[in-house]
Amino acid sequence: MGVGWGTDEKAIIWVLGHRNASQRRLISETYQQLYDQPLVDSLHSELSGDFGKAVIFWTYDPPVRDAILANEALQTKRKGINHLLPIVEIACATSPHHLIAVRQAYCSLYNCSLEEDILSTISSPFRKTLVGLVSPYRYDKEVVNMDVANSEAALLHEAIERKQLDQDSVLWVLGTRNIFQLRATFQCYEQNYGSPVDEDIKSCGKGDLESLLGVIVRCLDCPERHFAEVVRNSIIGLGTDEDSLTRAIITRAEIDLMKVRGEYNNMYNSSLDSAVIGDTSGDYKDFLLTLLGAKV
Amino acid sequence: MGVGWGTDEKAIIWVLGHRNASQRRLISETYQQLYDQPLVDSLHSELSGDFGKAVIFWTYDPPVRDAILANEALQTKRKGINHLLPIVEIACATSPHHLIAVRQAYCSLYNCSLEEDILSTISSPFRKTLVGLVSPYRYDKEVVNMDVANSEAALLHEAIERKQLDQDSVLWVLGTRNIFQLRATFQCYEQNYGSPVDEDIKSCGKGDLESLLGVIVRCLDCPERHFAEVVRNSIIGLGTDEDSLTRAIITRAEIDLMKVRGEYNNMYNSSLDSAVIGDTSGDYKDFLLTLLGAKV
Repeated sequence: MGVGWGTDEKAIIWVLGHRNASQRRLISETYQQLYDQPLVDSLHSELSGDFGKAVIFWTYDPPVRDAILANEALQTKRKGINHLLPIVEIACATSPHHLIAVRQAYCSLYNCSLEEDILSTISSPFRKTLVGLVSPYRYDKEVVNMDVANSEAALLHEAIERKQLDQDSVLWVLGTRNIFQLRATFQCYEQNYGSPVDEDIKSCGKGDLESLLGVIVRCLDCPERHFAEVVRNSIIGLGTDEDSLTRAIITRAEIDLMKVRGEYNNMYNSSLDSAVIGDTSGDYKDFLLTLLGAKV
Repeated sequence: MGVGWGTDEKAIIWVLGHRNASQRRLISETYQQLYDQPLVDSLHSELSGDFGKAVIFWTYDPPVRDAILANEALQTKRKGINHLLPIVEIACATSPHHLIAVRQAYCSLYNCSLEEDILSTISSPFRKTLVGLVSPYRYDKEVVNMDVANSEAALLHEAIERKQLDQDSVLWVLGTRNIFQLRATFQCYEQNYGSPVDEDIKSCGKGDLESLLGVIVRCLDCPERHFAEVVRNSIIGLGTDEDSLTRAIITRAEIDLMKVRGEYNNMYNSSLDSAVIGDTSGDYKDFLLTLLGAKV
Protein backbone atom coordinates (compact mmCIF):
# COMPACT_ATOMS: atom_id res chain seq x y z
CA MET A 1 0.00 0.00 0.00
CA GLY A 2 1.62 3.25 -1.11
CA VAL A 3 2.34 6.17 1.19
CA GLY A 4 1.70 8.97 -1.28
CA TRP A 5 2.75 6.70 -4.15
CA GLY A 6 -0.70 5.59 -5.13
CA THR A 7 -2.48 2.63 -3.69
CA ASP A 8 -2.33 -0.96 -4.77
CA GLU A 9 -5.99 -1.94 -4.46
CA LYS A 10 -5.35 -5.43 -5.80
CA ALA A 11 -2.84 -6.08 -2.98
CA ILE A 12 -5.37 -4.83 -0.39
CA ILE A 13 -8.04 -7.12 -1.78
CA TRP A 14 -5.63 -10.03 -1.92
CA VAL A 15 -4.10 -9.57 1.53
CA LEU A 16 -7.06 -8.48 3.63
CA GLY A 17 -9.73 -10.38 1.71
CA HIS A 18 -8.13 -13.71 2.53
CA ARG A 19 -7.56 -13.15 6.25
CA ASN A 20 -9.84 -14.08 9.12
CA ALA A 21 -10.67 -11.73 12.00
CA SER A 22 -7.76 -12.68 14.24
CA GLN A 23 -5.31 -12.46 11.34
CA ARG A 24 -6.67 -9.02 10.44
CA ARG A 25 -6.29 -7.95 14.07
CA LEU A 26 -2.63 -9.03 13.96
CA ILE A 27 -2.11 -7.18 10.68
CA SER A 28 -3.67 -4.03 12.20
CA GLU A 29 -1.50 -4.28 15.31
CA THR A 30 1.67 -4.81 13.30
CA TYR A 31 0.78 -1.94 10.97
CA GLN A 32 0.29 0.35 13.98
CA GLN A 33 3.72 -0.65 15.35
CA LEU A 34 5.49 -0.19 12.02
CA TYR A 35 3.89 3.06 10.88
CA ASP A 36 2.67 4.55 14.16
CA GLN A 37 -0.77 5.01 12.63
CA PRO A 38 -3.94 2.90 12.76
CA LEU A 39 -4.40 0.83 9.59
CA VAL A 40 -8.02 1.95 9.26
CA ASP A 41 -6.89 5.62 9.26
CA SER A 42 -4.47 4.90 6.40
CA LEU A 43 -7.20 3.06 4.52
CA HIS A 44 -9.53 6.01 5.14
CA SER A 45 -7.07 8.45 3.58
CA GLU A 46 -6.15 6.25 0.62
CA LEU A 47 -9.44 4.61 -0.34
CA SER A 48 -12.85 6.01 -1.07
CA GLY A 49 -16.32 5.07 -2.22
CA ASP A 50 -18.00 1.74 -1.66
CA PHE A 51 -14.71 -0.12 -1.99
CA GLY A 52 -13.08 1.98 0.73
CA LYS A 53 -16.06 1.63 3.03
CA ALA A 54 -16.16 -2.15 2.57
CA VAL A 55 -12.42 -2.60 3.17
CA ILE A 56 -12.53 -0.40 6.27
CA PHE A 57 -15.50 -2.29 7.72
CA TRP A 58 -13.68 -5.53 7.01
CA THR A 59 -10.53 -4.28 8.74
CA TYR A 60 -12.21 -3.22 11.97
CA ASP A 61 -12.36 -5.73 14.75
CA PRO A 62 -15.87 -7.27 14.30
CA PRO A 63 -17.30 -5.95 17.62
CA VAL A 64 -16.04 -2.42 16.79
CA ARG A 65 -17.46 -2.70 13.27
CA ASP A 66 -20.86 -3.74 14.59
CA ALA A 67 -20.84 -0.99 17.23
CA ILE A 68 -20.22 1.52 14.41
CA LEU A 69 -23.01 -0.04 12.32
CA ALA A 70 -25.39 0.19 15.27
CA ASN A 71 -24.44 3.80 15.90
CA GLU A 72 -24.91 4.70 12.21
CA ALA A 73 -28.31 3.03 12.35
CA LEU A 74 -29.29 5.20 15.32
CA GLN A 75 -28.07 8.38 13.60
CA THR A 76 -30.21 7.68 10.53
CA LYS A 77 -33.39 9.73 10.72
CA ARG A 78 -35.62 7.83 8.35
CA LYS A 79 -39.11 6.49 8.51
CA GLY A 80 -39.78 2.79 8.49
CA ILE A 81 -37.65 0.09 9.95
CA ASN A 82 -35.09 -0.58 7.24
CA HIS A 83 -32.37 1.52 8.86
CA LEU A 84 -32.83 -0.41 12.13
CA LEU A 85 -31.95 -3.77 10.57
CA PRO A 86 -28.28 -3.67 11.64
CA ILE A 87 -29.33 -3.53 15.30
CA VAL A 88 -31.78 -6.41 14.92
CA GLU A 89 -29.11 -8.44 13.13
CA ILE A 90 -26.51 -7.84 15.86
CA ALA A 91 -29.03 -8.70 18.59
CA CYS A 92 -30.66 -11.73 16.97
CA ALA A 93 -28.25 -13.20 14.43
CA THR A 94 -24.90 -13.17 16.23
CA SER A 95 -23.69 -15.03 19.33
CA PRO A 96 -24.47 -13.79 22.87
CA HIS A 97 -20.74 -13.42 23.40
CA HIS A 98 -20.37 -11.25 20.30
CA LEU A 99 -23.34 -9.07 21.30
CA ILE A 100 -21.69 -8.33 24.66
CA ALA A 101 -18.43 -7.48 22.89
CA VAL A 102 -20.33 -5.08 20.61
CA ARG A 103 -21.96 -3.40 23.63
CA GLN A 104 -18.56 -3.04 25.29
CA ALA A 105 -17.08 -1.59 22.09
CA TYR A 106 -20.04 0.77 21.85
CA CYS A 107 -19.34 2.13 25.35
CA SER A 108 -15.67 2.67 24.47
CA LEU A 109 -16.43 4.44 21.20
CA TYR A 110 -19.39 6.60 22.16
CA ASN A 111 -19.09 7.23 25.92
CA CYS A 112 -22.52 5.84 26.63
CA SER A 113 -24.22 2.49 26.36
CA LEU A 114 -25.98 1.17 23.28
CA GLU A 115 -29.15 0.92 25.39
CA GLU A 116 -28.98 4.61 26.34
CA ASP A 117 -28.57 5.64 22.70
CA ILE A 118 -31.46 3.44 21.57
CA LEU A 119 -33.68 4.95 24.27
CA SER A 120 -32.72 8.53 23.44
CA THR A 121 -32.88 8.33 19.65
CA ILE A 122 -35.62 5.81 18.81
CA SER A 123 -39.27 6.41 19.49
CA SER A 124 -41.93 4.10 20.90
CA PRO A 125 -42.67 1.21 20.38
CA PHE A 126 -39.40 0.36 18.63
CA ARG A 127 -37.19 1.53 21.43
CA LYS A 128 -38.70 -0.86 23.92
CA THR A 129 -38.38 -3.71 21.43
CA LEU A 130 -34.78 -2.92 20.54
CA VAL A 131 -33.63 -2.36 24.13
CA GLY A 132 -35.32 -5.64 25.06
CA LEU A 133 -33.40 -7.40 22.28
CA VAL A 134 -29.90 -6.01 22.80
CA SER A 135 -29.88 -6.24 26.61
CA PRO A 136 -30.22 -9.91 27.55
CA TYR A 137 -27.35 -12.35 27.58
CA ARG A 138 -28.89 -15.46 26.06
CA TYR A 139 -27.82 -18.93 27.06
CA ASP A 140 -25.84 -20.19 24.08
CA LYS A 141 -26.07 -23.96 24.15
CA GLU A 142 -28.64 -26.33 22.70
CA VAL A 143 -31.02 -26.88 25.60
CA VAL A 144 -34.62 -27.21 24.48
CA ASN A 145 -37.69 -27.76 26.62
CA MET A 146 -40.69 -28.87 24.58
CA ASP A 147 -43.18 -27.81 27.26
CA VAL A 148 -41.75 -24.30 27.10
CA ALA A 149 -41.88 -24.46 23.29
CA ASN A 150 -45.57 -25.37 23.37
CA SER A 151 -46.59 -22.87 26.00
CA GLU A 152 -44.65 -20.03 24.45
CA ALA A 153 -45.97 -20.86 20.98
CA ALA A 154 -49.42 -20.48 22.59
CA LEU A 155 -48.34 -17.19 24.18
CA LEU A 156 -47.19 -15.86 20.80
CA HIS A 157 -50.39 -17.08 19.15
CA GLU A 158 -52.58 -15.35 21.71
CA ALA A 159 -50.64 -12.08 21.36
CA ILE A 160 -51.05 -12.26 17.58
CA GLU A 161 -54.77 -13.08 17.82
CA ARG A 162 -55.31 -10.15 20.17
CA LYS A 163 -53.03 -7.90 18.13
CA GLN A 164 -50.99 -7.20 21.28
CA LEU A 165 -47.54 -7.63 19.84
CA ASP A 166 -46.05 -4.96 22.08
CA GLN A 167 -46.67 -6.76 25.35
CA ASP A 168 -43.71 -7.50 27.61
CA SER A 169 -44.17 -11.25 27.51
CA VAL A 170 -43.66 -11.41 23.72
CA LEU A 171 -40.47 -9.40 24.03
CA TRP A 172 -39.24 -11.56 26.91
CA VAL A 173 -39.68 -14.73 24.86
CA LEU A 174 -37.94 -13.32 21.78
CA GLY A 175 -35.28 -11.49 23.79
CA THR A 176 -34.21 -13.95 26.47
CA ARG A 177 -34.74 -17.51 25.20
CA ASN A 178 -31.81 -19.35 23.70
CA ILE A 179 -31.82 -19.63 19.94
CA PHE A 180 -32.41 -23.39 19.90
CA GLN A 181 -35.36 -23.07 22.25
CA LEU A 182 -36.80 -20.32 20.05
CA ARG A 183 -36.50 -22.40 16.90
CA ALA A 184 -38.33 -25.24 18.66
CA THR A 185 -41.00 -22.76 19.77
CA PHE A 186 -41.41 -21.47 16.20
CA GLN A 187 -41.72 -25.06 14.95
CA CYS A 188 -44.37 -25.81 17.56
CA TYR A 189 -46.19 -22.67 16.50
CA GLU A 190 -46.34 -23.79 12.88
CA GLN A 191 -47.39 -27.33 13.83
CA ASN A 192 -50.07 -26.18 16.26
CA TYR A 193 -51.47 -23.20 14.39
CA GLY A 194 -50.86 -24.03 10.74
CA SER A 195 -48.64 -21.19 9.54
CA PRO A 196 -45.19 -19.76 10.31
CA VAL A 197 -45.14 -17.26 13.17
CA ASP A 198 -43.54 -14.49 11.08
CA GLU A 199 -46.32 -14.77 8.47
CA ASP A 200 -48.98 -14.56 11.18
CA ILE A 201 -47.24 -11.53 12.67
CA LYS A 202 -47.32 -9.81 9.30
CA SER A 203 -50.99 -10.65 8.83
CA CYS A 204 -51.59 -8.90 12.15
CA GLY A 205 -51.24 -5.52 10.48
CA LYS A 206 -49.16 -3.54 8.02
CA GLY A 207 -47.51 -1.32 10.62
CA ASP A 208 -43.81 -0.97 11.31
CA LEU A 209 -44.00 -2.96 14.54
CA GLU A 210 -45.32 -5.96 12.64
CA SER A 211 -42.53 -5.60 10.07
CA LEU A 212 -39.91 -5.25 12.78
CA LEU A 213 -41.12 -8.32 14.69
CA GLY A 214 -41.29 -10.26 11.43
CA VAL A 215 -37.63 -9.48 10.78
CA ILE A 216 -36.72 -10.34 14.38
CA VAL A 217 -38.34 -13.76 14.10
CA ARG A 218 -36.65 -14.32 10.73
CA CYS A 219 -33.20 -13.40 12.13
CA LEU A 220 -33.68 -15.70 15.11
CA ASP A 221 -35.13 -18.56 13.11
CA CYS A 222 -33.03 -18.56 9.96
CA PRO A 223 -30.43 -15.78 9.64
CA GLU A 224 -29.23 -17.05 6.24
CA ARG A 225 -32.69 -16.45 4.80
CA HIS A 226 -32.79 -12.96 6.25
CA PHE A 227 -29.41 -12.08 4.76
CA ALA A 228 -30.30 -13.61 1.39
CA GLU A 229 -33.27 -11.21 1.43
CA VAL A 230 -31.07 -8.27 2.39
CA VAL A 231 -28.81 -8.99 -0.59
CA ARG A 232 -31.82 -9.43 -2.88
CA ASN A 233 -33.43 -6.19 -1.76
CA SER A 234 -30.14 -4.33 -2.19
CA ILE A 235 -29.88 -5.21 -5.88
CA ILE A 236 -33.43 -5.34 -7.21
CA GLY A 237 -35.03 -2.25 -8.62
CA LEU A 238 -33.25 0.82 -9.92
CA GLY A 239 -29.73 1.29 -8.56
CA THR A 240 -28.01 -0.69 -5.85
CA ASP A 241 -28.13 -0.21 -2.06
CA GLU A 242 -24.39 -0.70 -1.59
CA ASP A 243 -24.47 -0.11 2.17
CA SER A 244 -26.85 -3.03 2.72
CA LEU A 245 -25.01 -5.26 0.25
CA THR A 246 -21.68 -4.52 1.94
CA ARG A 247 -23.15 -5.06 5.39
CA ALA A 248 -24.67 -8.43 4.52
CA ILE A 249 -21.49 -9.79 2.95
CA ILE A 250 -18.96 -8.32 5.40
CA THR A 251 -20.83 -9.19 8.60
CA ARG A 252 -21.69 -12.74 7.52
CA ALA A 253 -18.41 -13.59 5.76
CA GLU A 254 -17.07 -15.37 8.82
CA ILE A 255 -20.38 -16.68 10.11
CA ASP A 256 -22.61 -18.21 7.46
CA LEU A 257 -21.96 -16.62 4.07
CA MET A 258 -21.89 -19.99 2.33
CA LYS A 259 -25.31 -20.75 3.80
CA VAL A 260 -26.57 -17.32 2.69
CA ARG A 261 -25.30 -18.16 -0.80
CA GLY A 262 -27.15 -21.48 -0.79
CA GLU A 263 -30.32 -19.94 0.59
CA TYR A 264 -30.16 -17.20 -2.06
CA ASN A 265 -30.01 -19.90 -4.71
CA ASN A 266 -33.01 -21.71 -3.20
CA MET A 267 -35.10 -18.61 -2.77
CA TYR A 268 -34.43 -16.80 -6.02
CA ASN A 269 -33.26 -19.59 -8.29
CA SER A 270 -30.19 -17.58 -9.26
CA SER A 271 -26.66 -17.20 -7.94
CA LEU A 272 -25.63 -14.63 -5.38
CA ASP A 273 -22.25 -14.30 -7.08
CA SER A 274 -23.90 -13.39 -10.39
CA ALA A 275 -26.08 -10.88 -8.56
CA VAL A 276 -22.98 -9.20 -7.15
CA ILE A 277 -21.23 -9.31 -10.52
CA GLY A 278 -24.25 -7.78 -12.21
CA ASP A 279 -24.71 -4.92 -9.78
CA THR A 280 -21.18 -3.89 -8.77
CA SER A 281 -17.95 -3.09 -10.54
CA GLY A 282 -14.22 -2.52 -10.18
CA ASP A 283 -12.39 -3.06 -6.91
CA TYR A 284 -15.63 -3.11 -4.94
CA LYS A 285 -16.88 -6.04 -7.00
CA ASP A 286 -13.55 -7.86 -6.74
CA PHE A 287 -13.47 -7.40 -2.99
CA LEU A 288 -17.00 -8.72 -2.42
CA LEU A 289 -16.33 -11.68 -4.70
CA THR A 290 -13.13 -12.43 -2.78
CA LEU A 291 -15.14 -12.55 0.44
CA LEU A 292 -17.65 -14.80 -1.33
CA GLY A 293 -14.75 -17.15 -2.01
CA ALA A 294 -14.74 -16.68 -5.76
CA LYS A 295 -11.43 -16.62 -7.63
CA VAL A 296 -10.89 -13.00 -8.72
CA MET B 1 -5.93 -28.72 55.79
CA GLY B 2 -6.21 -32.32 56.75
CA VAL B 3 -7.33 -35.13 54.51
CA GLY B 4 -9.14 -37.20 57.08
CA TRP B 5 -6.78 -35.92 59.80
CA GLY B 6 -9.06 -33.19 61.08
CA THR B 7 -9.12 -29.69 59.74
CA ASP B 8 -6.98 -26.76 60.77
CA GLU B 9 -9.57 -23.97 60.73
CA LYS B 10 -7.04 -21.40 61.91
CA ALA B 11 -4.83 -22.13 58.90
CA ILE B 12 -7.82 -21.78 56.56
CA ILE B 13 -8.73 -18.45 58.11
CA TRP B 14 -5.15 -17.28 57.99
CA VAL B 15 -4.38 -18.38 54.44
CA LEU B 16 -7.63 -17.70 52.59
CA GLY B 17 -8.69 -14.69 54.66
CA HIS B 18 -5.63 -12.72 53.66
CA ARG B 19 -5.74 -13.42 49.93
CA ASN B 20 -7.41 -11.36 47.22
CA ALA B 21 -9.59 -12.84 44.47
CA SER B 22 -6.81 -13.53 41.97
CA GLN B 23 -4.64 -15.11 44.67
CA ARG B 24 -7.55 -17.28 45.77
CA ARG B 25 -8.11 -18.31 42.16
CA LEU B 26 -4.44 -19.37 41.93
CA ILE B 27 -4.73 -21.30 45.19
CA SER B 28 -7.85 -23.07 43.88
CA GLU B 29 -6.14 -23.93 40.60
CA THR B 30 -3.03 -25.24 42.34
CA TYR B 31 -5.14 -27.24 44.79
CA GLN B 32 -7.00 -28.84 41.89
CA GLN B 33 -3.71 -29.79 40.22
CA LEU B 34 -2.20 -31.23 43.42
CA TYR B 35 -5.20 -33.13 44.76
CA ASP B 36 -7.27 -33.64 41.62
CA GLN B 37 -10.31 -32.23 43.42
CA PRO B 38 -11.85 -28.76 43.51
CA LEU B 39 -10.86 -26.85 46.65
CA VAL B 40 -14.49 -25.85 47.32
CA ASP B 41 -15.49 -29.55 47.31
CA SER B 42 -12.85 -30.33 49.95
CA LEU B 43 -14.02 -27.34 51.99
CA HIS B 44 -17.58 -28.59 51.65
CA SER B 45 -16.70 -32.00 53.04
CA GLU B 46 -14.51 -30.68 55.87
CA LEU B 47 -16.32 -27.56 57.06
CA SER B 48 -19.87 -26.92 58.11
CA GLY B 49 -22.21 -24.30 59.51
CA ASP B 50 -21.88 -20.57 59.00
CA PHE B 51 -18.09 -20.78 59.02
CA GLY B 52 -18.06 -23.35 56.23
CA LYS B 53 -20.56 -21.41 54.18
CA ALA B 54 -18.58 -18.19 54.54
CA VAL B 55 -15.25 -19.80 53.64
CA ILE B 56 -16.76 -21.52 50.62
CA PHE B 57 -18.36 -18.30 49.34
CA TRP B 58 -15.05 -16.56 49.83
CA THR B 59 -13.22 -19.29 47.89
CA TYR B 60 -15.45 -19.21 44.83
CA ASP B 61 -14.46 -16.93 42.00
CA PRO B 62 -16.54 -13.76 42.72
CA PRO B 63 -18.70 -14.03 39.56
CA VAL B 64 -19.48 -17.70 40.35
CA ARG B 65 -20.24 -16.79 43.97
CA ASP B 66 -22.64 -14.05 42.90
CA ALA B 67 -24.32 -16.33 40.34
CA ILE B 68 -24.92 -18.84 43.17
CA LEU B 69 -26.25 -16.07 45.44
CA ALA B 70 -28.61 -14.92 42.68
CA ASN B 71 -29.82 -18.47 42.07
CA GLU B 72 -30.39 -19.07 45.81
CA ALA B 73 -32.36 -15.81 45.90
CA LEU B 74 -34.57 -17.06 43.07
CA GLN B 75 -35.12 -20.43 44.76
CA THR B 76 -36.31 -18.78 47.97
CA LYS B 77 -40.07 -18.78 48.06
CA ARG B 78 -40.72 -16.02 50.58
CA LYS B 79 -42.97 -13.02 50.67
CA GLY B 80 -41.56 -9.53 50.65
CA ILE B 81 -38.41 -8.37 48.95
CA ASN B 82 -35.68 -9.25 51.43
CA HIS B 83 -34.66 -12.44 49.65
CA LEU B 84 -34.29 -10.50 46.39
CA LEU B 85 -31.62 -8.17 47.78
CA PRO B 86 -28.67 -10.21 46.42
CA ILE B 87 -29.93 -9.68 42.87
CA VAL B 88 -30.40 -5.94 43.38
CA GLU B 89 -26.93 -5.69 44.88
CA ILE B 90 -25.29 -7.56 41.99
CA ALA B 91 -27.16 -5.41 39.46
CA CYS B 92 -26.76 -2.01 41.12
CA ALA B 93 -23.75 -2.13 43.41
CA THR B 94 -21.11 -3.92 41.34
CA SER B 95 -19.33 -2.92 38.14
CA PRO B 96 -20.95 -3.46 34.71
CA HIS B 97 -18.05 -5.74 33.90
CA HIS B 98 -18.66 -7.87 37.00
CA LEU B 99 -22.39 -8.08 36.28
CA ILE B 100 -21.68 -9.50 32.84
CA ALA B 101 -19.26 -12.01 34.35
CA VAL B 102 -21.97 -13.07 36.83
CA ARG B 103 -24.47 -13.54 34.00
CA GLN B 104 -21.94 -15.63 32.07
CA ALA B 105 -21.22 -17.72 35.18
CA TYR B 106 -24.98 -18.12 35.71
CA CYS B 107 -25.39 -19.56 32.20
CA SER B 108 -22.52 -22.01 32.79
CA LEU B 109 -23.85 -23.17 36.16
CA TYR B 110 -27.58 -23.39 35.49
CA ASN B 111 -27.97 -24.01 31.72
CA CYS B 112 -30.17 -20.96 31.26
CA SER B 113 -29.77 -17.23 31.58
CA LEU B 114 -30.28 -15.25 34.78
CA GLU B 115 -32.99 -13.30 32.93
CA GLU B 116 -34.89 -16.47 32.05
CA ASP B 117 -34.81 -17.65 35.66
CA ILE B 118 -35.96 -14.27 36.97
CA LEU B 119 -38.85 -14.28 34.50
CA SER B 120 -39.90 -17.84 35.30
CA THR B 121 -39.63 -17.67 39.11
CA ILE B 122 -40.50 -14.09 40.11
CA SER B 123 -43.96 -12.60 39.74
CA SER B 124 -45.06 -9.21 38.48
CA PRO B 125 -44.08 -6.38 38.99
CA PHE B 126 -40.73 -7.46 40.45
CA ARG B 127 -39.73 -9.58 37.52
CA LYS B 128 -39.93 -6.70 35.09
CA THR B 129 -37.92 -4.53 37.47
CA LEU B 130 -35.25 -7.16 38.10
CA VAL B 131 -34.88 -8.15 34.45
CA GLY B 132 -34.60 -4.46 33.58
CA LEU B 133 -31.82 -4.06 36.14
CA VAL B 134 -29.69 -7.11 35.39
CA SER B 135 -29.86 -6.84 31.59
CA PRO B 136 -28.23 -3.56 30.59
CA TYR B 137 -24.50 -3.04 30.28
CA ARG B 138 -23.99 0.38 31.86
CA TYR B 139 -21.32 2.77 30.68
CA ASP B 140 -18.73 2.70 33.46
CA LYS B 141 -16.89 6.02 33.32
CA GLU B 142 -17.69 9.34 34.90
CA VAL B 143 -19.62 11.16 32.19
CA VAL B 144 -22.39 13.35 33.58
CA ASN B 145 -24.84 15.50 31.68
CA MET B 146 -26.60 18.00 33.93
CA ASP B 147 -29.47 18.52 31.47
CA VAL B 148 -30.16 14.79 31.61
CA ALA B 149 -29.85 14.92 35.43
CA ASN B 150 -32.47 17.65 35.62
CA SER B 151 -34.89 16.17 33.13
CA GLU B 152 -34.65 12.66 34.59
CA ALA B 153 -35.05 14.02 38.14
CA ALA B 154 -38.28 15.58 36.83
CA LEU B 155 -39.27 12.27 35.23
CA LEU B 156 -38.76 10.44 38.54
CA HIS B 157 -40.65 13.15 40.40
CA GLU B 158 -43.61 12.93 38.07
CA ALA B 159 -43.71 9.14 38.34
CA ILE B 160 -43.66 9.41 42.14
CA GLU B 161 -46.37 12.09 42.18
CA ARG B 162 -48.57 9.99 39.93
CA LYS B 163 -47.70 6.81 41.83
CA GLN B 164 -46.61 5.19 38.56
CA LEU B 165 -43.37 3.67 39.70
CA ASP B 166 -43.74 0.67 37.43
CA GLN B 167 -43.57 2.60 34.17
CA ASP B 168 -40.86 1.68 31.67
CA SER B 169 -39.21 5.11 31.72
CA VAL B 170 -38.40 4.86 35.46
CA LEU B 171 -36.83 1.46 34.94
CA TRP B 172 -34.87 2.68 31.92
CA VAL B 173 -33.37 5.55 33.91
CA LEU B 174 -32.40 3.35 36.87
CA GLY B 175 -31.32 0.43 34.71
CA THR B 176 -29.32 1.99 31.89
CA ARG B 177 -27.73 5.24 33.11
CA ASN B 178 -24.16 5.19 34.33
CA ILE B 179 -23.71 5.33 38.08
CA PHE B 180 -22.20 8.83 38.09
CA GLN B 181 -25.04 10.20 35.99
CA LEU B 182 -27.56 8.61 38.34
CA ARG B 183 -25.93 10.13 41.40
CA ALA B 184 -26.09 13.56 39.74
CA THR B 185 -29.74 12.91 38.90
CA PHE B 186 -30.50 11.96 42.52
CA GLN B 187 -28.73 15.15 43.72
CA CYS B 188 -30.76 17.25 41.29
CA TYR B 189 -33.87 15.56 42.58
CA GLU B 190 -33.11 16.49 46.16
CA GLN B 191 -32.20 20.07 45.21
CA ASN B 192 -35.25 20.59 43.03
CA TYR B 193 -37.89 18.77 45.08
CA GLY B 194 -36.64 19.06 48.64
CA SER B 195 -36.18 15.46 49.74
CA PRO B 196 -34.13 12.42 48.71
CA VAL B 197 -35.64 10.36 45.94
CA ASP B 198 -35.63 7.10 47.96
CA GLU B 199 -37.61 8.77 50.77
CA ASP B 200 -40.15 10.09 48.30
CA ILE B 201 -40.44 6.64 46.73
CA LYS B 202 -41.17 5.13 50.15
CA SER B 203 -43.76 7.82 50.90
CA CYS B 204 -45.45 6.75 47.67
CA GLY B 205 -46.85 3.67 49.37
CA LYS B 206 -45.95 0.84 51.70
CA GLY B 207 -45.98 -1.87 49.05
CA ASP B 208 -43.14 -4.13 48.09
CA LEU B 209 -42.49 -2.29 44.81
CA GLU B 210 -41.81 0.91 46.74
CA SER B 211 -39.47 -0.96 49.09
CA LEU B 212 -37.67 -2.60 46.18
CA LEU B 213 -37.20 0.69 44.30
CA GLY B 214 -36.02 2.34 47.51
CA VAL B 215 -33.31 -0.31 47.89
CA ILE B 216 -32.40 0.01 44.22
CA VAL B 217 -31.88 3.77 44.54
CA ARG B 218 -29.89 3.26 47.74
CA CYS B 219 -27.63 0.65 46.10
CA LEU B 220 -27.03 2.91 43.11
CA ASP B 221 -26.54 6.07 45.14
CA CYS B 222 -24.54 4.87 48.12
CA PRO B 223 -23.81 1.11 48.30
CA GLU B 224 -21.87 1.48 51.56
CA ARG B 225 -24.97 2.80 53.29
CA HIS B 226 -27.06 -0.08 51.94
CA PHE B 227 -24.56 -2.66 53.17
CA ALA B 228 -24.22 -0.97 56.58
CA GLU B 229 -28.00 -1.37 56.83
CA VAL B 230 -27.81 -5.03 55.76
CA VAL B 231 -25.28 -5.71 58.52
CA ARG B 232 -27.40 -3.77 61.03
CA ASN B 233 -30.59 -5.62 60.12
CA SER B 234 -28.77 -8.94 60.34
CA ILE B 235 -27.79 -8.44 63.98
CA ILE B 236 -30.60 -6.45 65.58
CA GLY B 237 -33.48 -8.23 67.22
CA LEU B 238 -33.49 -11.81 68.41
CA GLY B 239 -30.91 -14.04 66.78
CA THR B 240 -28.62 -13.24 63.90
CA ASP B 241 -29.30 -13.50 60.17
CA GLU B 242 -25.95 -15.08 59.38
CA ASP B 243 -26.62 -15.46 55.66
CA SER B 244 -27.09 -11.71 55.23
CA LEU B 245 -24.15 -10.85 57.46
CA THR B 246 -21.89 -13.24 55.55
CA ARG B 247 -23.11 -11.92 52.21
CA ALA B 248 -22.50 -8.28 53.12
CA ILE B 249 -18.98 -8.87 54.40
CA ILE B 250 -17.86 -11.41 51.79
CA THR B 251 -19.22 -9.61 48.73
CA ARG B 252 -17.94 -6.17 49.78
CA ALA B 253 -14.59 -7.26 51.25
CA GLU B 254 -12.75 -6.40 48.07
CA ILE B 255 -14.95 -3.49 46.99
CA ASP B 256 -15.77 -1.07 49.78
CA LEU B 257 -15.79 -2.83 53.14
CA MET B 258 -13.79 -0.06 54.80
CA LYS B 259 -16.38 2.45 53.59
CA VAL B 260 -19.19 0.20 54.87
CA ARG B 261 -17.40 0.15 58.22
CA GLY B 262 -17.16 3.96 58.27
CA GLU B 263 -20.76 4.38 57.21
CA TYR B 264 -21.89 1.93 59.89
CA ASN B 265 -20.11 4.07 62.46
CA ASN B 266 -21.77 7.23 61.13
CA MET B 267 -25.23 5.75 60.95
CA TYR B 268 -25.39 3.78 64.20
CA ASN B 269 -22.72 5.46 66.28
CA SER B 270 -21.13 2.12 67.04
CA SER B 271 -18.49 -0.08 65.47
CA LEU B 272 -19.21 -2.76 62.91
CA ASP B 273 -16.39 -4.88 64.34
CA SER B 274 -18.01 -4.83 67.79
CA ALA B 275 -21.34 -5.73 66.22
CA VAL B 276 -19.75 -8.79 64.59
CA ILE B 277 -17.95 -9.72 67.82
CA GLY B 278 -21.19 -9.41 69.79
CA ASP B 279 -23.29 -11.53 67.45
CA THR B 280 -20.95 -14.26 66.19
CA SER B 281 -18.51 -16.71 67.73
CA GLY B 282 -15.71 -19.17 67.08
CA ASP B 283 -14.16 -19.66 63.65
CA TYR B 284 -17.01 -17.83 61.96
CA LYS B 285 -16.32 -14.73 64.04
CA ASP B 286 -12.57 -14.97 63.46
CA PHE B 287 -13.06 -15.33 59.73
CA LEU B 288 -15.37 -12.32 59.40
CA LEU B 289 -13.04 -10.22 61.55
CA THR B 290 -10.10 -11.26 59.38
CA LEU B 291 -11.98 -10.00 56.32
CA LEU B 292 -12.75 -6.80 58.21
CA GLY B 293 -9.01 -6.34 58.59
CA ALA B 294 -8.92 -6.84 62.35
CA LYS B 295 -6.01 -8.71 63.94
CA VAL B 296 -7.41 -12.07 65.06
